[in-house]
Amino acid sequence: MELTQARREILEAAAACFMEQGFHATSIDVVARRMGATKGRVYHHYQSKVDLFFDVHRLGMALLFDAVEPARQAPGDALQVLAAMMRAHALAMFRHHAFESVVVQGVQLHRFGALTPRQRQELDELIASRDRFEQLFKQQAAAARDAGLLQAPDLSVAVKTLLGGLQWSLIWYRPEIDDSQATQERLADAMVNLLVQGLATRRQGSAAGGQGA
Amino acid sequence: MELTQARREILEAAAACFMEQGFHATSIDVVARRMGATKGRVYHHYQSKVDLFFDVHRLGMALLFDAVEPARQAPGDALQVLAAMMRAHALAMFRHHAFESVVVQGVQLHRFGALTPRQRQELDELIASRDRFEQLFKQQAAAARDAGLLQAPDLSVAVKTLLGGLQWSLIWYRPEIDDSQATQERLADAMVNLLVQGLATRRQGSAAGGQGA
Repeated sequence: MELTQARREILEAAAACFMEQGFHATSIDVVARRMGATKGRVYHHYQSKVDLFFDVHRLGMALLFDAVEPARQAPGDALQVLAAMMRAHALAMFRHHAFESVVVQGVQLHRFGALTPRQRQELDELIASRDRFEQLFKQQAAAARDAGLLQAPDLSVAVKTLLGGLQWSLIWYRPEIDDSQATQERLADAMVNLLVQGLATRRQGSAAGGQGA
Repeated sequence: MELTQARREILEAAAACFMEQGFHATSIDVVARRMGATKGRVYHHYQSKVDLFFDVHRLGMALLFDAVEPARQAPGDALQVLAAMMRAHALAMFRHHAFESVVVQGVQLHRFGALTPRQRQELDELIASRDRFEQLFKQQAAAARDAGLLQAPDLSVAVKTLLGGLQWSLIWYRPEIDDSQATQERLADAMVNLLVQGLATRRQGSAAGGQGA
């Protein structure tokens, strides 16, 4: 996603506002104030709050793809590649916490009220981009399963659960308390190891007590 | 949580409105309309939207505790008990999807604007109740670890990751498509098994590629 420095600064401020104050309380005025800029400087680039929200969302998705795509070339077997993708995803969420929090708030239609046809199309593209992102993990998980490295009777539920386990960190991780790279890597490793290895020290006798496969 | 039938009906309608339309777009009018009731009938029980939101949240938490508390007495070792608690949590989220979606939207201060001292106190109690809920899982995970059944170098991250994996289902599970008990149990088992057993078929050679413990 190519952005001028001016636009990028506006999006950084907007992401922080949307995250902290929510969609409704945020306005172009609020974003300008946060930047110490005039309203006109923001309006020069963005005519509406909805457009601003879409671009924050779009940059948030681009940052995720930029992090995860290279990890698909990580060394190792198919499961190690999946783990590398999960780790890259976790680190990107820590590093771009405001953008990814807005992404995770979700593109819920009721936020916006009426959309123009162009905005409607942008929304559809964003939803498609989120689906593609999940698909990357699903394809890799399928490859790992085909190689006999991954167990998941329901691959779709497995991928949603692993992404959920990672993405929930947007709710509990506090960059304002500690945003050091060492901490981010320690947390990412802890999450990925849990999801890959499971809670159980042993494989036998620790199923969910349910019906099995 | 003791509730009259009249209040329970109002809370069911309110939970659906908050989930579908968000906090801002919901009003006592909207809730009354959904129930096919007069505004006065709702106002008789709830004077403000914030009070209504707090009670939806409170009932949502009560339903979670009601589901998970009995699972703490499940048969089996400490890890099997933890798995039973996770399964009960998942099923409660499926069954009370609107309430738990509102709970998961989170008690974010910016939603409300100014709070009265009583509302402020209720908010603090709700936050404490969420902490207690997470604590139940943490205690059980600690017991499983002490018994040598659970591996987690960082127990806090492990519990947040497992709860995140489960709670993310509020985003992808669609009761309107299939709310049968068989499907809910199948999905709960799939999530719990993944978290307990992990993705990997084998334990060796599948770590996150990171620094280790």
